[in-house]
Amino acid sequence: MAGGGKKSSHAAAAVPKSGDGEQANNTTDLNSFVKSQDYANYFCTYSYLYHQKEMLSDHVRMNAYYRSVFDNQECFRDKVVMDVGAGSGILSVWAAKAGARKVYAIEATSISKHARTLVEHNGLSEIVTVMQTKVEDIESLPEPVDVIISEWMGYFLLRESMLDSVIVARDRFLRPGGALYPSHCTVYLAPCRTPLAMQRANELSNAMNNWDRFSSDIQAQYDVDLSCLRTPYYTEETEYSLQTSQWAEVYPSQLAGVGAPMLELDLNTCTVADIEVIKANVTMQISMPAGVDGDDEDTAMGEAAEAPAAEQPLQGIVGWFDVEFRGSEKNPAQQLHPPVVLSTAPDASGATHWGQQLFPVAPGAVTVRDGDVLHAEVKLERREENHRLLRLYFDMCKQPKGTRPKDVDWNAQVALRWNID
Amino acid sequence: MAGGGKKSSHAAAAVPKSGDGEQANNTTDLNSFVKSQDYANYFCTYSYLYHQKEMLSDHVRMNAYYRSVFDNQECFRDKVVMDVGAGSGILSVWAAKAGARKVYAIEATSISKHARTLVEHNGLSEIVTVMQTKVEDIESLPEPVDVIISEWMGYFLLRESMLDSVIVARDRFLRPGGALYPSHCTVYLAPCRTPLAMQRANELSNAMNNWDRFSSDIQAQYDVDLSCLRTPYYTEETEYSLQTSQWAEVYPSQLAGVGAPMLELDLNTCTVADIEVIKANVTMQISMPAGVDGDDEDTAMGEAAEAPAAEQPLQGIVGWFDVEFRGSEKNPAQQLHPPVVLSTAPDASGATHWGQQLFPVAPGAVTVRDGDVLHAEVKLERREENHRLLRLYFDMCKQPKGTRPKDVDWNAQVALRWNID
Repeated sequence: MAGGGKKSSHAAAAVPKSGDGEQANNTTDLNSFVKSQDYANYFCTYSYLYHQKEMLSDHVRMNAYYRSVFDNQECFRDKVVMDVGAGSGILSVWAAKAGARKVYAIEATSISKHARTLVEHNGLSEIVTVMQTKVEDIESLPEPVDVIISEWMGYFLLRESMLDSVIVARDRFLRPGGALYPSHCTVYLAPCRTPLAMQRANELSNAMNNWDRFSSDIQAQYDVDLSCLRTPYYTEETEYSLQTSQWAEVYPSQLAGVGAPMLELDLNTCTVADIEVIKANVTMQISMPAGVDGDDEDTAMGEAAEAPAAEQPLQGIVGWFDVEFRGSEKNPAQQLHPPVVLSTAPDASGATHWGQQLFPVAPGAVTVRDGDVLHAEVKLERREENHRLLRLYFDMCKQPKGTRPKDVDWNAQVALRWNID
Repeated sequence: MAGGGKKSSHAAAAVPKSGDGEQANNTTDLNSFVKSQDYANYFCTYSYLYHQKEMLSDHVRMNAYYRSVFDNQECFRDKVVMDVGAGSGILSVWAAKAGARKVYAIEATSISKHARTLVEHNGLSEIVTVMQTKVEDIESLPEPVDVIISEWMGYFLLRESMLDSVIVARDRFLRPGGALYPSHCTVYLAPCRTPLAMQRANELSNAMNNWDRFSSDIQAQYDVDLSCLRTPYYTEETEYSLQTSQWAEVYPSQLAGVGAPMLELDLNTCTVADIEVIKANVTMQISMPAGVDGDDEDTAMGEAAEAPAAEQPLQGIVGWFDVEFRGSEKNPAQQLHPPVVLSTAPDASGATHWGQQLFPVAPGAVTVRDGDVLHAEVKLERREENHRLLRLYFDMCKQPKGTRPKDVDWNAQVALRWNID
């Protein structure tokens, strides 16, 4: 028995499964369980300089925040600023250099000591106060703040659920009409063509072949019949292979349709209730011009241009987000051309450390052709066992090209779901 | 800000660092913190069939336990058996098949439901009772047990600290004179020659070069001086590169001396106090016959056989363990030839999933030559921030070949330490 070490290859191994009812016998236990798990699994990651360096090396991220401060200095000059989740302290240093009168750098992990060093070393101790605490635990500040700046976005925007803390900071400490940077967010979904789903399906198939050999070995050598565990193993491996999304860098050429917004948030007004469970109807038009992909070759070459393209497997759904730095209605950011947008889309110039989330669709589950329209009822919710992780439900109907929405057979819905680990 | 996902590459990221004093403000919080973290980080790993399959596929492990039951059936026939940490339930099934009257299969994680399925499917429900609980939480059993069987060993034997639970089971439920399988353990250390230390040192050097480029970039592009964080980054990277052990499969030819026992345990009598902090004096003789390794070539070829071999860097220390299945004095296992020993040594026939733990020594920290003797004061203790993880201290003096122990310069001690993650 040896696990949890370097040979464990299940990505989700650090997350307790739901159904482990003995983990929390009552509400108090549950609260302390959730809180403690949170420290163990979430915050500690950010206490490493290694990880801070990764984020500071993301130039798309850095340039967007840099512009939002230095191309917008009027909104920082003589202002009181709060940096929620300050990490290395870089945004606080920038805010101070842009003329802020006072900056509160709030950071829950021990990386705060390095933030303090950075602030001192850059001669800004008079302006920037680094506080090692969760923002939720701050009783009071000497004054309300004019600006909240924060880099809180997780994979697929909401993984990590750190926006909750920004909302708390806004509601408790932001002066009415004060500005948030970023201020607006959009999450997009698009159909895509990627070998991932096929790879995952092959992995699953290999895993089951491997199980069968293993099970025969155990029977032959140790006289124990494991056949009753085949189905549970298949379920576990399917969840791992096809029901878990993956970090990916998707090329624009792999998109099979434009991104459809599934969520738009105005941080000036949104509440935790708005983001705990998100429901949306998303419509995506399939765009797979014949000949663009190798798979289409026969069709493109051998048939007349008017012939309908062949049905092809829908290989995946890709998700990403943009955030904008517009400030608030009363304190808008300076009008910039181009406006400051931090985009993590496949077509953005330069990859970000967020990449995209790729949701594989099992080969054969859904086939599509150019011009089809997909209608999906989407639900994004936090996982019971860890509120910082997510699950995406995607119940989908296909409206074949040339038919009308009212002709769609809503009973032929395909129900997909993925964990976002 | 996006972390804890698939791009995090620091192995220790799931472990909170000590010094995060705000994590637990009082003893109650600390207890619940430790307990909850334990569920999140430790037990859940074992709830996956994938992980159980890895362990069931380790034939060295399987054969040792199989022999300890079926070549020793007299010790199981009509007996009451407890399986501590039953996992898939395989040992309980074997105990029942070997004639046990009753088997209590104790398993804390949700894998217990699969163990129950396995027991039922193999027609053993009358004999084997699967209980989903920690053994510490069992109030009472209908009867004392005659035998405890358990596969509790972690990397370097004691990582995971699961032996504590076996000791609790023994003290509460084992009939006086009852037998434990396994019953005896030994942990060994040996000097070794491996490219790992050099690789790790190169990684560290690359990491620092990378930091310097990164730091210049940040200065040039964003006008922030990060130079004050170089030393903390070096400290962090050194801990990661050279002060953390690694799972490895060491070849017997890579040993530079025979294994010296640093710990011998008799499970019939040992206490938790015996294993919480372990101190030992270990003596290891360097054996690097000239010509065996490429590095010795010049020496072997160009000099007389009597000339002393060249000093070479001590590249690492390797650790492993053996366990034996001897039962107790009053209820010994059947005398078998060969006796049942589960060895994870480099020279064992066939690798185990435990492999060995490799403790890198920075190039240049210690040089040795054939015939030298290393005297080490060793301390193995649990880590403050997670009692299932370990830290090994290794304070070492060299006694050059041909000198006497009393000539050793004890002031020239080299202090090494490693985290065992």
